Amino acid sequence: MAEFSPLVSELIEALRCLPGVGPKSAQRMAFHILQRDREGGMRLARVLAEAVAKVGECRYCRILTEQALCTICSSGKRDRSTLCIVENPADVYALDQATDYSGLYFVLKGRLSPLDGIGPAELGLDCLEKRFCEGEIREIVLATNSTVEGEATAQFIAEMAYNNAIHVSRIAYGVPVGGELEYVDSGTLSHAFAGRREYR
Amino acid sequence: MAEFSPLVSELIEALRCLPGVGPKSAQRMAFHILQRDREGGMRLARVLAEAVAKVGECRYCRILTEQALCTICSSGKRDRSTLCIVENPADVYALDQATDYSGLYFVLKGRLSPLDGIGPAELGLDCLEKRFCEGEIREIVLATNSTVEGEATAQFIAEMAYNNAIHVSRIAYGVPVGGELEYVDSGTLSHAFAGRREYR
Ligand SMILES: [Zn+2]
Ligand SMILES: [Zn+2]
Repeated sequence: MAEFSPLVSELIEALRCLPGVGPKSAQRMAFHILQRDREGGMRLARVLAEAVAKVGECRYCRILTEQALCTICSSGKRDRSTLCIVENPADVYALDQATDYSGLYFVLKGRLSPLDGIGPAELGLDCLEKRFCEGEIREIVLATNSTVEGEATAQFIAEMAYNNAIHVSRIAYGVPVGGELEYVDSGTLSHAFAGRREYR
Repeated sequence: MAEFSPLVSELIEALRCLPGVGPKSAQRMAFHILQRDREGGMRLARVLAEAVAKVGECRYCRILTEQALCTICSSGKRDRSTLCIVENPADVYALDQATDYSGLYFVLKGRLSPLDGIGPAELGLDCLEKRFCEGEIREIVLATNSTVEGEATAQFIAEMAYNNAIHVSRIAYGVPVGGELEYVDSGTLSHAFAGRREYR
């Protein structure tokens, strides 16, 4: 049976690190780059190496950035007294695009899931609590997903906020229950955000 | 509106060189690598740069390889008197996996399409004719796609073969008309290959 050359095989295998890319589409991608877009492939190799080496997270909100502070946290135009709390970095961009929210964000990078070993520390809740104590934040908007774990996470953070006399709201249901925030359409997101209600 | 950091934006943009990857999935891929699989991203960057720099084509059959001759053309176990002619490198692997064909291949990397400036020279037909003249090849199997252009290409190559008293067959219809060979299932491909018939 015909085999790919070692380097072509290795490229097909390496492309499978991308989410949603199976053997067939990895092969299609490898052939496309090598036959039709070597310049694009070269650029991707360079940018990827640089991004993996340099991109870290914003030390305030945990958004991916190669700078110490992300563009949102370092902006002079943002309301620094409001903090919207989301599970994933992608949720920040989805919300910011769909709503007129102008406060800051905090990215949990997950949700409480004791069975998977994800506790408060893994979500950066110790840092978050410290910021709650500092007094600059007067309102938080809980925008974790409407899954069981997302709700438990919201509940946990709400208690932390109550202890610091911070106003808490939760985005309105309207997003499909059990759905992932980043795949919801702008209209639904906008509606859910505008219709957020007092938490508990 | 929140913006990605310059390097994250650049990565999302660079990922769009991959076929079938739009803005949303490029973003998903970038976040996945940066959040969950930096090792995979680093490896992809390295292998991609190396492949783009080193992979060329086999000087006999035009299959992608970083060596002078591909594994098929340099194999001692292949029947060197039979040549199967396909449009794309991917077709070679699809046919070789689905059939018990053990001859050599020739990859056109396209099909005759005068309006797009793709003539015999672009498909390497001058080299192919030279090999026909040399006398080693006694049979060719035409496995170009069953599109109008694929048929015209098969016809053109068949004439070249007739002039050199080479036996010509065409893989049997059975593959969906107008379909691309590389997406056909193994069973159909195997059937079509086994049922190939004398050309014209
Ligand atoms: Zn930030
Ligand atoms: Zn070869």
